[in-house]
Amino acid sequence: MCEAQFDVIDGGVTAAEGFQACGIAAGIKVDSPDMALLLSEGATAVAGVFTTNKVFAAPVALCKRHVADGRARAVIINSGCANACTGEPGARDTQAMAASTAQVLDLPVDEVMVCSTGTIGKRLPMETVLSGIKQAAAALTPQGGPDAARAIMTTDTRPKEYAVALEIEGKRVVVGGMCKGAGMIAPNMATMLGFLTTDAAVDPAAWQALLKTSVDASFNAITVDGDESTNDTVLAFANGRADNTPLDASHADWPVFSAAVQAVCLTLAHAIVKDGEGATKFVTVTVEGAVDDADADLAARAVANSLLVKTAVFGGDPNWGRVIAAVGYSGAQVDQSRIEIDFDEVAAVKGGCMAEGVAFEMLEKVYARPAFEVTVRLNLGSGSRTVYTCDVSYDYVKINAEYMT
Amino acid sequence: MCEAQFDVIDGGVTAAEGFQACGIAAGIKVDSPDMALLLSEGATAVAGVFTTNKVFAAPVALCKRHVADGRARAVIINSGCANACTGEPGARDTQAMAASTAQVLDLPVDEVMVCSTGTIGKRLPMETVLSGIKQAAAALTPQGGPDAARAIMTTDTRPKEYAVALEIEGKRVVVGGMCKGAGMIAPNMATMLGFLTTDAAVDPAAWQALLKTSVDASFNAITVDGDESTNDTVLAFANGRADNTPLDASHADWPVFSAAVQAVCLTLAHAIVKDGEGATKFVTVTVEGAVDDADADLAARAVANSLLVKTAVFGGDPNWGRVIAAVGYSGAQVDQSRIEIDFDEVAAVKGGCMAEGVAFEMLEKVYARPAFEVTVRLNLGSGSRTVYTCDVSYDYVKINAEYMT
Repeated sequence: MCEAQFDVIDGGVTAAEGFQACGIAAGIKVDSPDMALLLSEGATAVAGVFTTNKVFAAPVALCKRHVADGRARAVIINSGCANACTGEPGARDTQAMAASTAQVLDLPVDEVMVCSTGTIGKRLPMETVLSGIKQAAAALTPQGGPDAARAIMTTDTRPKEYAVALEIEGKRVVVGGMCKGAGMIAPNMATMLGFLTTDAAVDPAAWQALLKTSVDASFNAITVDGDESTNDTVLAFANGRADNTPLDASHADWPVFSAAVQAVCLTLAHAIVKDGEGATKFVTVTVEGAVDDADADLAARAVANSLLVKTAVFGGDPNWGRVIAAVGYSGAQVDQSRIEIDFDEVAAVKGGCMAEGVAFEMLEKVYARPAFEVTVRLNLGSGSRTVYTCDVSYDYVKINAEYMT
Repeated sequence: MCEAQFDVIDGGVTAAEGFQACGIAAGIKVDSPDMALLLSEGATAVAGVFTTNKVFAAPVALCKRHVADGRARAVIINSGCANACTGEPGARDTQAMAASTAQVLDLPVDEVMVCSTGTIGKRLPMETVLSGIKQAAAALTPQGGPDAARAIMTTDTRPKEYAVALEIEGKRVVVGGMCKGAGMIAPNMATMLGFLTTDAAVDPAAWQALLKTSVDASFNAITVDGDESTNDTVLAFANGRADNTPLDASHADWPVFSAAVQAVCLTLAHAIVKDGEGATKFVTVTVEGAVDDADADLAARAVANSLLVKTAVFGGDPNWGRVIAAVGYSGAQVDQSRIEIDFDEVAAVKGGCMAEGVAFEMLEKVYARPAFEVTVRLNLGSGSRTVYTCDVSYDYVKINAEYMT
């Protein structure tokens, strides 16, 4: 990360030049915004990363088809209904959303992406949705980013957007984004939707590769409850309004551009964890010294997803035994006599045991912080992985016991 | 299961002839029983199944060594401290517990097993433990089973024991058992301890094989929170007091005997789920038609461990989308268009979608029951697996946020 080389600015998906957006209340939900539209002016490179869940929603299938040629200019998004597990009729509904959006915006249908989020297993109220699309097209403005960020929320308590400005070939370029997600979040994106925009020109293949790398280290490195959803999608649009030489790995400004994209993804991903359903604490879990990165990932996810670890974090109860137990059952190669665990500055575990001179009160102090880091060193190799998680509180149970009804 | 061929009787580990037990308050915990001792009279075949966690406690290592020759007559058990992550000093403490027990009971040390359960990472108070062992030896009685069941509890709200009587070669034989466990329970036994006794004569190799099979379908098929502990152990003792021809698979009465052992394991395992920390509901999850049994196991565990499914069960909210999403991310081979899901008598999902004629209210009725079955048919092969789970409630969070302190 080279934060010094770009500036954080206001806004989200419409912070970059040549993007318009809106958020409207079409009537899918009762009394709150439920549709967003994002439009890029001119030829636009698109990249996408999708859920790995084998049960995936109709819009995911459509986006995968439409992203294939690396070009798209618009995305229509609804909250309130995921259009997942709706079979062939659901696929037709998604297709109708794309067709209707293409018509009102005068675009080829394969330049339109569709995203849905909300309850699984319900059909979309298509009359409401189709009239909402017309309403949305009429509401597009270059200042519409914040409204869009609000319209895509489900159990989120606040909209999530972020943007940075940087220089490419001496010209000002913006990378911005928005996302939604608060539950059903696991490393593999879960029920989150994310949208990035930039006015830089980017080579489509390089754009796709950069998005994949950035999502792996951000949206795919967060967990709220370990559940992966059927609808996760991150789409990234680059419209080239800055008129720079299209960016790829050979471009001199690629490092700063990719750092900016990664920073936007990571900041948005952290915002999801911090807004995790009922979350009161933010915990960074790093595993180092694993046999390889895949093993480090297994161990870090096991700790970050452990219900016992997460309830202990909520309770401010520094039960490090739950952390080491999770490492042990993670499937990663482990020699318990070599395990070391730090909680922030407290080197609590050495040789698989409580380190000498470490008092319970020192750990309690760390667990009382609103954010802290758990670092596990397996001392077996050079594999590493960082994931981000939150605690599980009474409110998590409350929110998820009562979501559908 | 052939329940008709055996009778449920009172008692647990001392229901069979030739077993003595006790539960005493040694002082490891404040004011509650914390040590149990079980002794079998005469040569006894022993079998054991242990945690697969790579971080395992000192007593697990000792039990694995002592079970190897298939013979053991006693087990000393403490609650209040797991003696896990205690390194070489912890291993010496376990060894000292075995040696001291062997001395007071006049047994070879390798005929003594040791089990510990409680908080990870703390040393045992050895002076208290060693004086507790003497106290326990003096307290042994043939009626001591219930006291032992009470002494091994941690967050359990009630002792768990069960026994059945059957006939082998026309002679009365008893199979009994006790267990503890309420949290940190996952398919792979977690923080549970289980002890079986029988006065039948059983071939040691057949006894080990039968225990393994029975544990797979019972203690390894339950989940409370998906966390696997460092101390899980199931030990089974057969002292041959019934003087039957040693049982193995070639014996005419093997089917009824193995059914009895399986019934004892399954009943005890169900008792753990029903006593799951904060649990209010009991859910049986069966996956059928998977490509193979391993795939069925993946899918069944994903559903049974899903925090979203478990909070929905608590809330009585029949969100079947969370069930199908868990199947999708389980790693099992899945074709979403073939998935069928029943909730008790309601065939809710067909072809991956809500079945026609199924109303939300029908599912709400099922979710309101104290116990119900979720049956997922993948329609891809003949693999199947049943696991047992409970809901996650406010009280689960409360218990686990406050356990250590």
